[in-house]
Amino acid sequence: MANDTNQEQTQEQTRGLRLIEAVPQGHKLALRQIEKDQAITRYNVTIGYASETIAAGRWVHENLVQLPPARTLDQLPIATRAIHLPPLEGYTFQGYRNVDGSVGTRNILAITTTVQCVAGVVECAVKRIKEGLLPRFPNVDDVVGLEHSYGCGVAIDAPGAQIPIRTVRNISLNPNFGGQALVVSLGCEKMQPSRLFPASVKLMGTKIPTSLPAETTSAFEPTIVCLQDAQHVGFESMITSIMHSAEQQLAILNQRQRVTCAAADLVVGVQCGGSDAFSGVTANPAVGFATDLLVRAGASVMFSEVTEVRDGIDQLTARAATPEVAAAMIREMDWYDLYLKRGGVDRSANTTPGNKKGGLSNIVEKAMGSIVKSGSSAISGVLAPGEKLAQKGLIYAATPASDFICGTLQLAAGMNIHIFTTGRGTPYGLAAVPVIKVATRNELAERWHDLMDINAGKIASGDASIDDIGWEMFHLILAVASGKKTWAEYWKLQNALVLFNPAPIT
Amino acid sequence: MANDTNQEQTQEQTRGLRLIEAVPQGHKLALRQIEKDQAITRYNVTIGYASETIAAGRWVHENLVQLPPARTLDQLPIATRAIHLPPLEGYTFQGYRNVDGSVGTRNILAITTTVQCVAGVVECAVKRIKEGLLPRFPNVDDVVGLEHSYGCGVAIDAPGAQIPIRTVRNISLNPNFGGQALVVSLGCEKMQPSRLFPASVKLMGTKIPTSLPAETTSAFEPTIVCLQDAQHVGFESMITSIMHSAEQQLAILNQRQRVTCAAADLVVGVQCGGSDAFSGVTANPAVGFATDLLVRAGASVMFSEVTEVRDGIDQLTARAATPEVAAAMIREMDWYDLYLKRGGVDRSANTTPGNKKGGLSNIVEKAMGSIVKSGSSAISGVLAPGEKLAQKGLIYAATPASDFICGTLQLAAGMNIHIFTTGRGTPYGLAAVPVIKVATRNELAERWHDLMDINAGKIASGDASIDDIGWEMFHLILAVASGKKTWAEYWKLQNALVLFNPAPIT
Repeated sequence: MANDTNQEQTQEQTRGLRLIEAVPQGHKLALRQIEKDQAITRYNVTIGYASETIAAGRWVHENLVQLPPARTLDQLPIATRAIHLPPLEGYTFQGYRNVDGSVGTRNILAITTTVQCVAGVVECAVKRIKEGLLPRFPNVDDVVGLEHSYGCGVAIDAPGAQIPIRTVRNISLNPNFGGQALVVSLGCEKMQPSRLFPASVKLMGTKIPTSLPAETTSAFEPTIVCLQDAQHVGFESMITSIMHSAEQQLAILNQRQRVTCAAADLVVGVQCGGSDAFSGVTANPAVGFATDLLVRAGASVMFSEVTEVRDGIDQLTARAATPEVAAAMIREMDWYDLYLKRGGVDRSANTTPGNKKGGLSNIVEKAMGSIVKSGSSAISGVLAPGEKLAQKGLIYAATPASDFICGTLQLAAGMNIHIFTTGRGTPYGLAAVPVIKVATRNELAERWHDLMDINAGKIASGDASIDDIGWEMFHLILAVASGKKTWAEYWKLQNALVLFNPAPIT
Repeated sequence: MANDTNQEQTQEQTRGLRLIEAVPQGHKLALRQIEKDQAITRYNVTIGYASETIAAGRWVHENLVQLPPARTLDQLPIATRAIHLPPLEGYTFQGYRNVDGSVGTRNILAITTTVQCVAGVVECAVKRIKEGLLPRFPNVDDVVGLEHSYGCGVAIDAPGAQIPIRTVRNISLNPNFGGQALVVSLGCEKMQPSRLFPASVKLMGTKIPTSLPAETTSAFEPTIVCLQDAQHVGFESMITSIMHSAEQQLAILNQRQRVTCAAADLVVGVQCGGSDAFSGVTANPAVGFATDLLVRAGASVMFSEVTEVRDGIDQLTARAATPEVAAAMIREMDWYDLYLKRGGVDRSANTTPGNKKGGLSNIVEKAMGSIVKSGSSAISGVLAPGEKLAQKGLIYAATPASDFICGTLQLAAGMNIHIFTTGRGTPYGLAAVPVIKVATRNELAERWHDLMDINAGKIASGDASIDDIGWEMFHLILAVASGKKTWAEYWKLQNALVLFNPAPIT
């Protein structure tokens, strides 16, 4: 792999170049001699400085690349390169439209929990509902307990505690749950149902294409099953209460029907995990291409992962649609810098052994490969962690880079379809939303033939262009949104919801 | 309920006392007039100061009680009241003895995970093992996937990161897993198997009462199934690998037999959750009595929950067996004070709406009721969060007070039986270790008749003494340790493992 993406320049530089040592697949080599302390360039960005002189043709391994300091958050270019792409029309999918206009890609009964204490009871109830009730409601795809580690034993009024609270709230409002409002509470927990769903929260409701009046489901009236309520005498009575409420919700959800929706109704979360040096040249650019198509079609696309865009903040602020959007991005980066500093680390804590084995020397190189998932259009908005999305276009949803935490926060934002690229390979999946997995390498795509939905490795081997894979992805997104199953759905691979709680545990 | 536990004094004071307003069950009333700013005393401790003059017979509700400042951590009494109780002999149970001398109370195959990424695959594998393999190994009670939120996307070298790492490690070494060593790894994660189990870790092995040479299982040689390994072609090959290793482990575990063990082989974790004002006068004193019996019998008993003993630190340091033990307790309190301060809160973040509804005005009153679970004996040792216990006697295992985090850390410490008291009621249970649940009130015990294992409410209604319930608990502990099922086991109520990670997410 060349150390520059500009092909013409690369061909010029590589004329007569010979490898002088073995270089593992995906790793970098020096195209010309790099002097000690000289900048090492990839993606037209300085990814580090040479810790010693590196001869042309030598393997540029991580120990030779000294991490540059993080770019400060002042004097950034603001909204200087906000490109508005031409519209793309005529693409549709079959989705479940909700009363608030949002659209589900699956039809799922979710049971919200206020606290981990009730998880065992909810798990039993979900099992019984799946066995005893679900078969009677064939239009409903699944029943999911929204279990999590939060709710009690936490400093619920501490700075940052609003993040896990709004995350649980907003996940419950995910369009795939069609306005369900079934909450299982213990009773004595800190995160009381009234705190989780204050009166100001509006539920989107479920649009029922029948004679049922819409107002019966559009107001926010969660059914709360409180285990400590005096009416619950013995374990079975708790299960009966949950099943009784579930049956009512299932009957409503069962009336949902797929209708033709514009591609603009998609809310796509893009993410990468288990990245390697191919991520930034195959799968992620293909995602970027698909992102542009989706944005042109009027959809919402979220990219995330603070530490994996931090080193490209100047690219992002330049692409901000307005100064306010740029300011919000800087606010999120600054918050995260301080959060990491408070914990005694910085952005360099991001890279993994797998990243390095895959050829990524440090977080700057990883970030440059990660950020291309955002395509080329103007950035229209910014979400803080756990916030719910309420606009179209390309959105920066600030989240940690942890795969499962990022996915959980994108669910909260209202994602109805998830694109996940991987170089090393991960069997990642979510219960609430389909995850389309994209391999960065042919070898992975072939070996994990029944886990990877798309092979972007063909870009590296010259068997497809970035545009080809981008279009394939766009069409697969529409198909999966319409009901086609992903491999993760086929095997029922479901990762846990993992909340981001920067506040203390008590 | 009186505001003082000294019965004689209380009778003297209450002569002629009349309630002047309604007082909810479990709440406090003033025995005599308390002037503004005067100390309010319960458990012979100042639990707060009157925010206004409180007439005799009035309800002392939380708004009238101003929280005193936390006791500083200097000038504490050190090892001044270390009482060594007389031995109690002759009590045994039937347990599974491991090669290292530890004893299991259940016989469980555990599958350790290095990262949340593999959770979906492990869940599928566990289901298949339960259906396809477990019936062939009737001596094995269960198969448990040790899934957690850690392993990647975390600052793994940050201060505090050793806590979640050693917690996962030490849970894998819990005596109930009999020296199993089956680890499912992704491959590229930060918490590599070699980091989770460095060469220095000794596994306890499984004592097989057959011709199998002991050395085949006593060395620490974990079987690692790495999903990214080249041998794994497709999803089914991953499941096959896990099942193949599981089958070998099951064959070994199936040979375990219960043998007679001294009560000294018990490692009991005590905890309270959903506490009310009865906790400190019924269930927790009964636990304290049982704790004394267990300590006298030579067992290990751990009490925990930093914020719920912080206000009684002077009692604890006084009871330390040695100055070193007292110093270790102060170290843990100090660490937690700073941890909370860094997050912008203090110990007062502990109490819940349920605690207050149940009559506990603040954390001081809650702590005084919580600390009595530790009984009266000298404190022999201190564990930092996630550390593994290696001694007998009464141990202070420092953990957050969060029920599920405390339970997870007590599992890591090597707990083989768990006592959990509750006033408001919680259906708490663990997959790895039986949980005996104790109700503080008759009403709860009667209503949750098939969830509560012991009713300590009889102490309040005069139907049993603290000693009676303490002995009942001691005998039930021995029975459950020998295989008798708890209600949580009967219903298969299992809370998630929730790790304590004070370090940042990346």
